Amino acid sequence: MKAVVKRSAERGVEYVTDYPDPKLTDGHVVIEVAAASLCGTDRELYEWTPSAQAFNLNLPVVLGHEGAGTIVEVGPGVTGLRIGDRVALESHLICGQCFPCRTGDAHTCERTRIIGMHIDGVFAEYMAAPQDICVKLPDHASLEIGSLLEAAGVAVHAVQRADYAVAGRAVLVSGGGPVGLVVAYLAQLMGASHLIVVEPNPYRRAQAEKIGALAIPPGDEVVERCRELTGRRGGFDVAFECSGAPAALPSLFEALRRESTLVTVGHPSRPAEINIAAHINKKGITLRGIFGRRLWDTWEQTMLLLDSGRLNLDWLITHRMPLGRVDEAVDLLTGDAGKVLLIPGQR
Amino acid sequence: MKAVVKRSAERGVEYVTDYPDPKLTDGHVVIEVAAASLCGTDRELYEWTPSAQAFNLNLPVVLGHEGAGTIVEVGPGVTGLRIGDRVALESHLICGQCFPCRTGDAHTCERTRIIGMHIDGVFAEYMAAPQDICVKLPDHASLEIGSLLEAAGVAVHAVQRADYAVAGRAVLVSGGGPVGLVVAYLAQLMGASHLIVVEPNPYRRAQAEKIGALAIPPGDEVVERCRELTGRRGGFDVAFECSGAPAALPSLFEALRRESTLVTVGHPSRPAEINIAAHINKKGITLRGIFGRRLWDTWEQTMLLLDSGRLNLDWLITHRMPLGRVDEAVDLLTGDAGKVLLIPGQR
Amino acid sequence: MKAVVKRSAERGVEYVTDYPDPKLTDGHVVIEVAAASLCGTDRELYEWTPSAQAFNLNLPVVLGHEGAGTIVEVGPGVTGLRIGDRVALESHLICGQCFPCRTGDAHTCERTRIIGMHIDGVFAEYMAAPQDICVKLPDHASLEIGSLLEAAGVAVHAVQRADYAVAGRAVLVSGGGPVGLVVAYLAQLMGASHLIVVEPNPYRRAQAEKIGALAIPPGDEVVERCRELTGRRGGFDVAFECSGAPAALPSLFEALRRESTLVTVGHPSRPAEINIAAHINKKGITLRGIFGRRLWDTWEQTMLLLDSGRLNLDWLITHRMPLGRVDEAVDLLTGDAGKVLLIPGQR
Amino acid sequence: MKAVVKRSAERGVEYVTDYPDPKLTDGHVVIEVAAASLCGTDRELYEWTPSAQAFNLNLPVVLGHEGAGTIVEVGPGVTGLRIGDRVALESHLICGQCFPCRTGDAHTCERTRIIGMHIDGVFAEYMAAPQDICVKLPDHASLEIGSLLEAAGVAVHAVQRADYAVAGRAVLVSGGGPVGLVVAYLAQLMGASHLIVVEPNPYRRAQAEKIGALAIPPGDEVVERCRELTGRRGGFDVAFECSGAPAALPSLFEALRRESTLVTVGHPSRPAEINIAAHINKKGITLRGIFGRRLWDTWEQTMLLLDSGRLNLDWLITHRMPLGRVDEAVDLLTGDAGKVLLIPGQR
Repeated sequence: MKAVVKRSAERGVEYVTDYPDPKLTDGHVVIEVAAASLCGTDRELYEWTPSAQAFNLNLPVVLGHEGAGTIVEVGPGVTGLRIGDRVALESHLICGQCFPCRTGDAHTCERTRIIGMHIDGVFAEYMAAPQDICVKLPDHASLEIGSLLEAAGVAVHAVQRADYAVAGRAVLVSGGGPVGLVVAYLAQLMGASHLIVVEPNPYRRAQAEKIGALAIPPGDEVVERCRELTGRRGGFDVAFECSGAPAALPSLFEALRRESTLVTVGHPSRPAEINIAAHINKKGITLRGIFGRRLWDTWEQTMLLLDSGRLNLDWLITHRMPLGRVDEAVDLLTGDAGKVLLIPGQR
Repeated sequence: MKAVVKRSAERGVEYVTDYPDPKLTDGHVVIEVAAASLCGTDRELYEWTPSAQAFNLNLPVVLGHEGAGTIVEVGPGVTGLRIGDRVALESHLICGQCFPCRTGDAHTCERTRIIGMHIDGVFAEYMAAPQDICVKLPDHASLEIGSLLEAAGVAVHAVQRADYAVAGRAVLVSGGGPVGLVVAYLAQLMGASHLIVVEPNPYRRAQAEKIGALAIPPGDEVVERCRELTGRRGGFDVAFECSGAPAALPSLFEALRRESTLVTVGHPSRPAEINIAAHINKKGITLRGIFGRRLWDTWEQTMLLLDSGRLNLDWLITHRMPLGRVDEAVDLLTGDAGKVLLIPGQR
Repeated sequence: MKAVVKRSAERGVEYVTDYPDPKLTDGHVVIEVAAASLCGTDRELYEWTPSAQAFNLNLPVVLGHEGAGTIVEVGPGVTGLRIGDRVALESHLICGQCFPCRTGDAHTCERTRIIGMHIDGVFAEYMAAPQDICVKLPDHASLEIGSLLEAAGVAVHAVQRADYAVAGRAVLVSGGGPVGLVVAYLAQLMGASHLIVVEPNPYRRAQAEKIGALAIPPGDEVVERCRELTGRRGGFDVAFECSGAPAALPSLFEALRRESTLVTVGHPSRPAEINIAAHINKKGITLRGIFGRRLWDTWEQTMLLLDSGRLNLDWLITHRMPLGRVDEAVDLLTGDAGKVLLIPGQR
Repeated sequence: MKAVVKRSAERGVEYVTDYPDPKLTDGHVVIEVAAASLCGTDRELYEWTPSAQAFNLNLPVVLGHEGAGTIVEVGPGVTGLRIGDRVALESHLICGQCFPCRTGDAHTCERTRIIGMHIDGVFAEYMAAPQDICVKLPDHASLEIGSLLEAAGVAVHAVQRADYAVAGRAVLVSGGGPVGLVVAYLAQLMGASHLIVVEPNPYRRAQAEKIGALAIPPGDEVVERCRELTGRRGGFDVAFECSGAPAALPSLFEALRRESTLVTVGHPSRPAEINIAAHINKKGITLRGIFGRRLWDTWEQTMLLLDSGRLNLDWLITHRMPLGRVDEAVDLLTGDAGKVLLIPGQR
């Protein structure tokens, strides 16, 4: 079959048309992939950065950890899934036995494996998926939307990590990539009183404005605007750092009010300097971060919104292309794009 | 001045035109009342029900605890308020010294006094208000909207009591009176996935539908619809009992999912029967209630939304009349009405 | 083998010596039961009360849901357990697939089955247990202590349900049966500032006093003492209702301070009357309850304390007897006893 | 009167015997200081470090912000306090009007002033104190113990900031100065399963061991011991950084389990490097800090424990000396000492 494969521990990926079809095993289903979405991590894997190397890939491997498709084969021991079911995929495979898994925090499972890294992923025509990571889509949701839900789930998790304190509150989002934009979209949906997205790229700022945010470039204005809009409150109520750039943090701490929350969503590649005395202690800001999605609270929340019709993510998809154009797709990740989809069935 | 006065411990109120003007004292301002809103408690006071008698009124007293107006006199020791300031009023006067007051729970102050009950209230042309209960309005908000904020604050508090767990969640509101409707409005604003208002009065159901809720009469359908809409979730995520009728509770418990929250907002006049084994223990529902508004977290939240322009309450006002028509206004409280305002300046 | 069996839907149990040995199946282990503990539910099952009938037993069945023993056989597909392992047993078998199971609330699983009710339990020489419910004991803990952990877990869960707000706080426990006593023991261990156990039985009051509580009989004194001890605080910080008697509730509400928490642990057999206006709304008390143990947060907490040596439950065991004396054991449940153990190996 | 005065913006303090007696003003009382305790900040003020300079002292000023004494004069407008009352002092003077003050977070008041910095403090025979900062002591508590409560309150606040998650949990304390030791003492009181204090000074380690902690020097052993003691839990449940040394942080992050909490209590003089990707995001550790005491939740908690007799701090006092030996007292702060008291009445 056609697939995008990482063969060796070096820069680049390979598009092949003769990758072996997935084997059906116990507790697994085979999915015909309808759409796969790219994420910043795919670019890291392509460039083979230190962050990518730290994932300990099981090479060679089909890349792609955000996808959706239709079940075409059902293995022994599978319950609750049938041929023809349309499913989105969770990307993390959890052990179910470690301390986090047993206490409701499986998103920090000690033995997490990830599709497209440790088992073959969704940048292919077919994928063999363990039944546990398949989430059935409602009829009205397209498979393209389904392919966004892993990434949208990161945004939902970010909001959950802030105890949903975007509702009616002044919300600051740092970074207008897809995850940051969905955080902003959710804040807008949940009645944020004020919503600012800080982003250097004008294309992404335009996207942020379309969903109702005030979009501004990084710089001194951030702190000023936040304080001006909140008056005696003294700053914004919550901030989400989605750019992964440690340089963004000081202005977020300044733009927040006392006793507020800063959620880190992006994963900086080097340590960040935090002024504990001024910001964590005296100003009383709580710093929390996330990794992946809460299993399965985040999916349950995401699907509730999707089912209800209030979660509309069509605007997020800006590009669709066949597997063979993967290099171009990776290039777009740092450019003028929202979500870029690989469509295995597209020529 | 003109005023609506409760003179004695019996049914009825008196509209007079010769009530003494309020005296200006230390730490007080005199307000020219622009609008005063009626609440269910005013009807209790009118009818002199056991609940009303339990308030231990300081008779005679000018009624009215929901109001807004313009400051016309400023007493000694007042800081931060000036003649001409447009203010809404908190209705509770708190001691500031008791255990709840000192630990952030002043809404349960042991020595709460209430305007329109223990000191002269806002059903009058003028009122002498302690400076602490005056909340300045933004320019774009009318004084009529200002007069709604005490009641709207009860709804905001209800949402706060549920830890804002209306955002993205399935929300059930029992009772379509003004407070229930504002709870529903806030749930809609904050992205509720599903929103049902249970209300017998068709006029109020129509109001609920205008703000985006599914409005249904009490009955078996409630549980059925909630389960049907939430599928494997098994019920709604949060319910607000705003009718004060204990008979409403069993169907709310049934309509909620496991590990959900029921917030009681209405004050039933007699004890309610709760099936602790089935609902509180086995189903894991948390029961919480509210009284008044959190001082001052609720006002800070309300004003943030009002300032931002996202809190639009115009639809809630259905009637305006002069003080002299107070009997008619009281009648409307149980009829086809949203909020009924007394306008002291209206003839 | 010897076993205590419930054969039919009527009062009584049967002690037999020829019950078939348990069969070893996939994912199961066979345990030689060293000790089994009786709980109030066993008395309900014996008496065949409406509550007992509501459990929908799978008759005939070996009773007993609190037990510990040594693994003597290991079935196919079992991982992490070996012959010779000493284990305590969780009593609830959960589905793992329903909404509560997937969102960290498996203690409210929609399809919970219970050992000693729906599959053969521990009032027998041997039991076939699914591997998931086996919890390995540390070397220093006896199997008798192991047999107490299911019941002790209910007490740990009660404390967890109160967000551990026994630490440094004034704690009221209603009911001095084994679960109430362990709640009191934990409160004492966790630095409760004041600790009162309300219990009519003098024998149990003596047990409560041994673990450091002030033990008093039900009556007016309860409210008076709680207020007297807490002064301006106005009442106790948290109460645990462990007696299952709805009549106990009003004095608990009165004895609590404003904005406190009442956790219901006992399962009353009929609805309780709650004064919502006075206690839930105006006083701001939060009502929460529990069922079983959080899976697996409660066991992780219990085992952490057991491992550390700070959880000493020896004092709780007051009687040990062979399976053949089960009628006498059941009688003791409402009498002068702490935990009564059946020891299958005892003659 | 005798007093220890900071006269000018340079190193050192001055002990004088002719400082003007405090003036009694509205809402104030005059206290005869019985005991004053030194804190690390006093050393900063003595040495005139950048941190000290940042406090913007109102010079000249009598130093000392931890003290207790007996009321000898009562000013106009004071309620609830009488001559002869024995009181401990809160050190922060709050505005009561800013956003944090109005929303239950007065410990982060935007206009905090501190006794011994912005108004004359307790290193003197007498002090004029605003009535709001006076907390009456129970009869059984000495004034020396009273002088420890401001500092002990920082420890209580630290525990509150961790939502009391020391109860039954594995607790790590970095820094065995007085505040760290009281955090450890509280953890022990509240049933910590495991308790480790990390401290380089052997004298302080001995103090930590007296209150039941395992005391070890900083180094690799910290992480190893924490993991070893908690087994599959994978690390400790909560850590308190009380040394103010940023270098302590990495090993705390390593020693904690996933989804745990790190509370910063010490105020580092320079930014700390935090590995957000590994510790905050992937490991899910929440970082929170404190400043001062929650007003007044912390005092209410502290006094509840003190009243109950379960808070015994006698062991913390290691030195007592007259005001004239202040230089020696300051020297002891970094040496072999617990709490060092200045006793104005001592010669």
